[in-house]
Amino acid sequence: MSSAILEVSPGNIPVFHGRNLKVVDRRVRIAEVVLRCLVCGLGVLAAVLIGSDTQVRVIFSVQKKARFTDMKALVFLVIADGIVAAYSLIQCLRCVVSMIRGSVLFNRPLAWIIFSGDQVMAYVMLAAVAAAAQSAVFAKLGQPELQWMKICDMYGKFCNEVGEGIASALVVSLSMVAVSCLSAFNLFRLYGGKSSSMW
Amino acid sequence: MSSAILEVSPGNIPVFHGRNLKVVDRRVRIAEVVLRCLVCGLGVLAAVLIGSDTQVRVIFSVQKKARFTDMKALVFLVIADGIVAAYSLIQCLRCVVSMIRGSVLFNRPLAWIIFSGDQVMAYVMLAAVAAAAQSAVFAKLGQPELQWMKICDMYGKFCNEVGEGIASALVVSLSMVAVSCLSAFNLFRLYGGKSSSMW
Repeated sequence: MSSAILEVSPGNIPVFHGRNLKVVDRRVRIAEVVLRCLVCGLGVLAAVLIGSDTQVRVIFSVQKKARFTDMKALVFLVIADGIVAAYSLIQCLRCVVSMIRGSVLFNRPLAWIIFSGDQVMAYVMLAAVAAAAQSAVFAKLGQPELQWMKICDMYGKFCNEVGEGIASALVVSLSMVAVSCLSAFNLFRLYGGKSSSMW
Repeated sequence: MSSAILEVSPGNIPVFHGRNLKVVDRRVRIAEVVLRCLVCGLGVLAAVLIGSDTQVRVIFSVQKKARFTDMKALVFLVIADGIVAAYSLIQCLRCVVSMIRGSVLFNRPLAWIIFSGDQVMAYVMLAAVAAAAQSAVFAKLGQPELQWMKICDMYGKFCNEVGEGIASALVVSLSMVAVSCLSAFNLFRLYGGKSSSMW
């Protein structure tokens, strides 16, 4: 209340132009830009780490090559990482442009599009990471009950690099969760009590 | 605007007590109760389907029993289903009580708790479903490159029942996503332009 500017109308109805509103707006925007940049950078890193990862082993004079395409979950993760990185780059540019222009997001259809996009990206990334992590657990520990053998004993370097890629992708997905919370805030506060029509 | 009651103050500042607001509130609440009941019911169904699933095969006079505990991803899914079902039951009761009392959620700390809980449940359920689905794909199709054999050829009935459980869990997780959007709406509209202080 202390930092809000209080105007009293002729009808004695207080109207608030909160200075807090601007402070929060700026903080939300900065957090959004930082998170989207993080998502973009780590998304590319994860895709490159996993996508470029190979290891060749010679077993009984037969050359075997481990690649990320041997596991569909890793292919899904690389594709998801790429899509999320490209999406975040576009969103990041939008945020920077709106910060330079000083415009505030009061456009409901645009806020709905951003919210929906962020939600889809967050859930797709999390599902991709979970599936890849499950595959990695099988590769690392095997599944003796089903006679699925460990493969990380043979392809240690390959597994380590995939592990680093999955760790980056996990940070990407958690950052996308945070971004989707911010865009939910940006959207649904437009439906606060001030407006006359809810939809 | 047509269905909103417009009052004009002495200072000629329009104050809206939107009838729309009440209609939307009621719809949101009904949708929330229906979705939470669905999550509760299907969560229990998925946990029972997977948890009670067994199949015995005799292979070369050795008796082998397939159980959900043979795959950690299925154990994680059963536990997640149980937790989400119990959580949804509690939330459902809260919704019904607040509907009977006719009270509206204008309590920010409570709205934050509900929002956080819903978000965590939605993401945990989706991760559990993705990991279980990945395991199911390995069980159904095998992974010839890694010499992981298909097991659904041997345990057809077991795999089918697990598949039904995962399908139920998928509906549960999508419903939780919808519920988490509703609770984001319920929370962040409290931060609309009407209030003086943002936090």
